[in-house]
Amino acid sequence: ATYKIAVLPGDGIGPDVTKEAVRVLELIREVDPGFDVHFTEFNWNSEYYLEHGTMMPEDGLEQLKAFDAILFGAIGDARVADEISIWQLIMPIRKNFRQYVNMRPIKRLVGIESPLKNDAPVDFVVFRENAEGEYSNVGGRLYTEQPQEMAIQNTVITRAGVERITRYAYEYARATGRKKVTSATKSNAIIHSMKLWDEAVAAVAGEYGGIEHESYFIDALAAYFVERPESFEVVVASNLFGDILTDLGAAIVGGLGVTPSGNINPERDFPSMFEAIHGSAPDIAGKGIANPIAQIWSAALMVDHLGRPELAKAIVSAIEQVLGEGKVRTPDLGGDATTEQLGGAIAQAVKEQ
Amino acid sequence: ATYKIAVLPGDGIGPDVTKEAVRVLELIREVDPGFDVHFTEFNWNSEYYLEHGTMMPEDGLEQLKAFDAILFGAIGDARVADEISIWQLIMPIRKNFRQYVNMRPIKRLVGIESPLKNDAPVDFVVFRENAEGEYSNVGGRLYTEQPQEMAIQNTVITRAGVERITRYAYEYARATGRKKVTSATKSNAIIHSMKLWDEAVAAVAGEYGGIEHESYFIDALAAYFVERPESFEVVVASNLFGDILTDLGAAIVGGLGVTPSGNINPERDFPSMFEAIHGSAPDIAGKGIANPIAQIWSAALMVDHLGRPELAKAIVSAIEQVLGEGKVRTPDLGGDATTEQLGGAIAQAVKEQ
Ligand SMILES: CC(C)[C@H](C(=O)O)[C@@H](O)C(=O)O
Ligand SMILES: CC(C)[C@H](C(=O)O)[C@@H](O)C(=O)O
Repeated sequence: ATYKIAVLPGDGIGPDVTKEAVRVLELIREVDPGFDVHFTEFNWNSEYYLEHGTMMPEDGLEQLKAFDAILFGAIGDARVADEISIWQLIMPIRKNFRQYVNMRPIKRLVGIESPLKNDAPVDFVVFRENAEGEYSNVGGRLYTEQPQEMAIQNTVITRAGVERITRYAYEYARATGRKKVTSATKSNAIIHSMKLWDEAVAAVAGEYGGIEHESYFIDALAAYFVERPESFEVVVASNLFGDILTDLGAAIVGGLGVTPSGNINPERDFPSMFEAIHGSAPDIAGKGIANPIAQIWSAALMVDHLGRPELAKAIVSAIEQVLGEGKVRTPDLGGDATTEQLGGAIAQAVKEQ
Repeated sequence: ATYKIAVLPGDGIGPDVTKEAVRVLELIREVDPGFDVHFTEFNWNSEYYLEHGTMMPEDGLEQLKAFDAILFGAIGDARVADEISIWQLIMPIRKNFRQYVNMRPIKRLVGIESPLKNDAPVDFVVFRENAEGEYSNVGGRLYTEQPQEMAIQNTVITRAGVERITRYAYEYARATGRKKVTSATKSNAIIHSMKLWDEAVAAVAGEYGGIEHESYFIDALAAYFVERPESFEVVVASNLFGDILTDLGAAIVGGLGVTPSGNINPERDFPSMFEAIHGSAPDIAGKGIANPIAQIWSAALMVDHLGRPELAKAIVSAIEQVLGEGKVRTPDLGGDATTEQLGGAIAQAVKEQ
């Protein structure tokens, strides 16, 4: 099949790491003629904004709609307010393309040093609600810059929204043989939205016999991530809680530089988007030393989503193999390899599989 | 001076650990006649609720108002919804008594095993906004139990509310010689309330030359807590973020059982309340094996608040001494001492100072 991929390298190290992900995918195309992938690059980033006054053209979403998937680098530049880069680019894509599932695997990998003494294997997947909740952007401010100023921010949670992300998490658990789903809540203190969250999660959980359901308050759960990360299999969380838990999860496996994510539209009526969870790291941009693993792994999630799980698996195995050998390591992993060398080693390992 | 203390032991292990905290305070009274402390116990807990249908009598707050401070155990019982125990007891006290500062020290102690490989000293204090924000309890639900059901929860942030907690954090930094204050935000995604947070924090920070101001997104900050906890000195955070960061902070120093907290009313027009951050742990309640350190330390924060910093210091030193010796340890610390034995050892150490 032919897959049309929109590539948005973005800012900072985004282009550095995205280049390597594209290289791995191109190589797969070479060895597997059934994987006919075509890339179209878009320069919609902070530079573009400084030139045009918007992060993407007015018909940007219209242009992207035609693609089978989007590979997204990273966004963030000191010259452009986060509010702009995020709310004019990432958020419109996530929200308009109904990418309500944000999938983020947290996996301990051989060759990546964990900050924890506990060396049990860690391998769970967080499904973060990606369309509503705390990032609804509903609210405003009153008495601007006066002493009595206030801001009201509305967390909007819908039963249908919670049910669909929970169902996705449970379907994933069932399909992959995982036996437990953990929900993150705070219904003891955030009693309107989080109680609806609990009820909707419980309703869906009840449909899945044989898969254990547990629910923790987010404060306790954050502590458990540190104390016993090996005990989690699948986690379902709201937009904000999932955001916090995945950065925390990445940190406990030592993997902020290697953790991928997929912004998934399960109905496939719009393209899904795949991106490393790390930021644009402007301090090391263009130096050729960024770790490309998170982005290559994100590309693997994309390949899986495109319906080629065996190719996705080959990419992830290649990453694990290169890390395990420990010969080619970027500076964040304690080595002195370049982005290109690490990308190249992974590409080579894919080829040899 | 004479200090009148209201003691609310609460549920589960609350009474077990509170008893030891009271014992330490009574002993100080014995050795220091200037510290004339009087305790009045209140049985307002889940048991009380099951009997009376409310967590405290109608004039409960009125009764508590007359005290100089409140020592609070823990609340939580499987037979009573969290919503009730929390919103009819803890929250009314915190909110009506204008305890807008929730102070939570995160300190690595000799004798407490940290889950991190990094063994740098960790010693910072989190000031959590305790009156508004995400726990404002403003909101509601629509289309109850129908497919289109939704909940709206309002985070309410006021400029004055952010300024006063930030000022408290900076004053603390200045008074204790700390050189940096870190603010937790998420203004890139929660753009109404968190932008006001950022602005109000920055306005106050600007008044304090010589103290560095930094600000991180909560997701990144959670990861930094794991990666480099030694780099923080004072953290100021919203109600929810402070809640998450303190449980996480406690976990990284191995100290969920030893971390204290103060719900402080800086104006002193109403009593402040001191409580361990751990919960009621019903599974070990009444067995005499709960670790009383968090509660004894909370009592020390109370003594400090009552204007006796030298006595507070003596209690904390006693805790550190007993932990350092490592002879008397409750099961959570790998020993087999009882709650009473550990409390007794600390009391003894206070006496010997
Ligand atoms: C009991 C609960 C509402 C409370 C909170 O979140 O404030 C607790 O977690 C705490 O941290 O004191
Ligand atoms: C860029 C930012 C708004 C974003 C988020 O919070 O969703 C990022 O932290 C992420 O996790 O993808």
